[in-house]
Amino acid sequence: MFISNRVKGLAGSVFSKFLKEAKNAKEIYPLHVGDSWLTPPKELIMENLKHSSHPHINKYAPPGGIPELREKIAELWSNKLNTNLTKNNVMIAAGATGALASALASIVDPGDEVIISAPYWPLIAGIVKSLSAKVIEAPFILDFSIQEADKTIELLEQLRTDRTRAIYINTPNNPTGKVLPKELLYKIGKWAHDRKLWIISDEVYEDLIYKGSHTSLYSLFPHNTVVAHAFSKSFGVAGYRCGFLIANDEIIKNAIKVSTYLFYSTTHPVQVAALKLLNSNFSDWIKNAVDQYREIGRYVAEQLKVPPAEGSTFLFLDLSRFLDNKTLDLLLEELAKEGVLLAPGYSFGPFDSWVRLCFTAIPPEKTKKGVDILLHKLYS
Amino acid sequence: MFISNRVKGLAGSVFSKFLKEAKNAKEIYPLHVGDSWLTPPKELIMENLKHSSHPHINKYAPPGGIPELREKIAELWSNKLNTNLTKNNVMIAAGATGALASALASIVDPGDEVIISAPYWPLIAGIVKSLSAKVIEAPFILDFSIQEADKTIELLEQLRTDRTRAIYINTPNNPTGKVLPKELLYKIGKWAHDRKLWIISDEVYEDLIYKGSHTSLYSLFPHNTVVAHAFSKSFGVAGYRCGFLIANDEIIKNAIKVSTYLFYSTTHPVQVAALKLLNSNFSDWIKNAVDQYREIGRYVAEQLKVPPAEGSTFLFLDLSRFLDNKTLDLLLEELAKEGVLLAPGYSFGPFDSWVRLCFTAIPPEKTKKGVDILLHKLYS
Repeated sequence: MFISNRVKGLAGSVFSKFLKEAKNAKEIYPLHVGDSWLTPPKELIMENLKHSSHPHINKYAPPGGIPELREKIAELWSNKLNTNLTKNNVMIAAGATGALASALASIVDPGDEVIISAPYWPLIAGIVKSLSAKVIEAPFILDFSIQEADKTIELLEQLRTDRTRAIYINTPNNPTGKVLPKELLYKIGKWAHDRKLWIISDEVYEDLIYKGSHTSLYSLFPHNTVVAHAFSKSFGVAGYRCGFLIANDEIIKNAIKVSTYLFYSTTHPVQVAALKLLNSNFSDWIKNAVDQYREIGRYVAEQLKVPPAEGSTFLFLDLSRFLDNKTLDLLLEELAKEGVLLAPGYSFGPFDSWVRLCFTAIPPEKTKKGVDILLHKLYS
Repeated sequence: MFISNRVKGLAGSVFSKFLKEAKNAKEIYPLHVGDSWLTPPKELIMENLKHSSHPHINKYAPPGGIPELREKIAELWSNKLNTNLTKNNVMIAAGATGALASALASIVDPGDEVIISAPYWPLIAGIVKSLSAKVIEAPFILDFSIQEADKTIELLEQLRTDRTRAIYINTPNNPTGKVLPKELLYKIGKWAHDRKLWIISDEVYEDLIYKGSHTSLYSLFPHNTVVAHAFSKSFGVAGYRCGFLIANDEIIKNAIKVSTYLFYSTTHPVQVAALKLLNSNFSDWIKNAVDQYREIGRYVAEQLKVPPAEGSTFLFLDLSRFLDNKTLDLLLEELAKEGVLLAPGYSFGPFDSWVRLCFTAIPPEKTKKGVDILLHKLYS
């Protein structure tokens, strides 16, 4: 029976092999997933979604999202971005994953190329490949500096071909924990703009900033930037699958069209809960989360003797000096046997000796224990 | 800026133009959407999903679905299909749409062809096109009979090329309300099996049978059949976006892989509610729904002087004798002005003078009023 080439090119879960090793561990420390230990805001607790107030949430929500939620997001992000958005600039999707898949499906045809700044969120490569398009890795996130921005542009220009359609940028960055500076974003954005390339700007961690400040590429280059956001990271509800795009009305119209055929629409009860949240004083929840994430993030960084994350929920660690003749997989398997799960660097691009650690997936006390086990392993 | 050819080939909402016409109507009768007026089973009411019992449903559910739900479905469908399924034969997805998009992405590459039995559920054509593959229409559903089954096979054989990868079949059928007989399904299935083609069997209306009985193609040809199901139609929760696939473990593994990149996973609270439902005495709810749907379905068919639907929630009506020199769009616009919305036949294939009417979207009393307005219009 025929299996598509597109699916043959995709990575399956790279975590399952390590999970298997962990099954006899006394306790499991899942530091490999990007999740939150916090209880979500009360507006997002399903129990609080009263049937009598919302009797029709069993019915289809329209493709692209319920108008009230799209309008509310347009209002809030108009203020944030100091611009004038309407609901036609907003699309609700099945998570940022569904949002980005829909955006890219509107932009790339088979054989087209997307430049992906690396290290990158692993799913973006799979999204591009699922659309039978090509991933072109641009590994500059780890060693950029604004003094070196021209080198980044040189690299991008070398990678560009007549099939290049878009560049994917993610700030605050998963997996590095970096917040990309405005000057660098401006140079990359201008390069893309002048070459009529789309900028796919993944800003799902925009609220999780511990140092510096977030710049949205949309505020710099609204015409050719498609921004992906999500409730997942800002409010600890990755399991709800509710994200959104902000972009010009033409690309939103097209992304809604294609999303209709990928997942039709976004879970209606979740959208109604998200609207309730955005009509509440939601910034208190975020402020508290950021304070707590910052504290544990700093602790973990200090223990591991690396600079703390500037944003997102991750540290990206170079373990080459601990590997000797060992492969990364062997080290990760040994750690898994002791219950500590980390994400291997090769999921994020050409980073075979690196690992990603999430410091927000489990409660701080447990994260600390996991880090202790990791340190003991590395220095034993 | 570049827009993909795949998105250019997609139909947007064909309903919005008629909706616009309806905005001044006294009351709106949305007979164009496939939805349910019923309140879902209590297990699916979000308010009943207690936070204290399910404190972790904010976190990611795994791609492919929570194991307990996959296992429960495997158990139930093993009984139904008289076979021996495990959770590796089941994938949970963002609605049947997400399930079918994932299945087809695992099967087709750009330029490959999918034969679609017509008239068809409009989204299937868009799914195929979103994957840069080709839709080949096989319009035999309206006039098949088992005596004529050989003609259907002849047609399919004429349409087959070396790029044909799959045939899409939908029973009980949207939009025709027909339940395809086992003998016909067997002949089609055998034809596909012998030619190593996948059968994409959309069985989301399997529980909504008013006459005859449903045959799952999986029970006939398990090796090459991928079945799509959904909670949407059986339990009136189209807005929840929870469907599933049943197929052999290799295609399920691949479909899960690609679904990871289309929408990552299915809304966690909805999966937990679905599991509660399947652990309850859910068949009572279905039995009551079928009784009510059958009654209003018969009434509407009688009024419109057509045979009642055998299954699903639709009637497909040939209006050619009412059109005279009028276009279907003009008639549908006139109806929309009076508040009655119907789905145009051209959304379902080459059926320019037909319309689809859903008899379960709104309460029976209101459906009856909508049908009165329709009849008055047709016979005035």
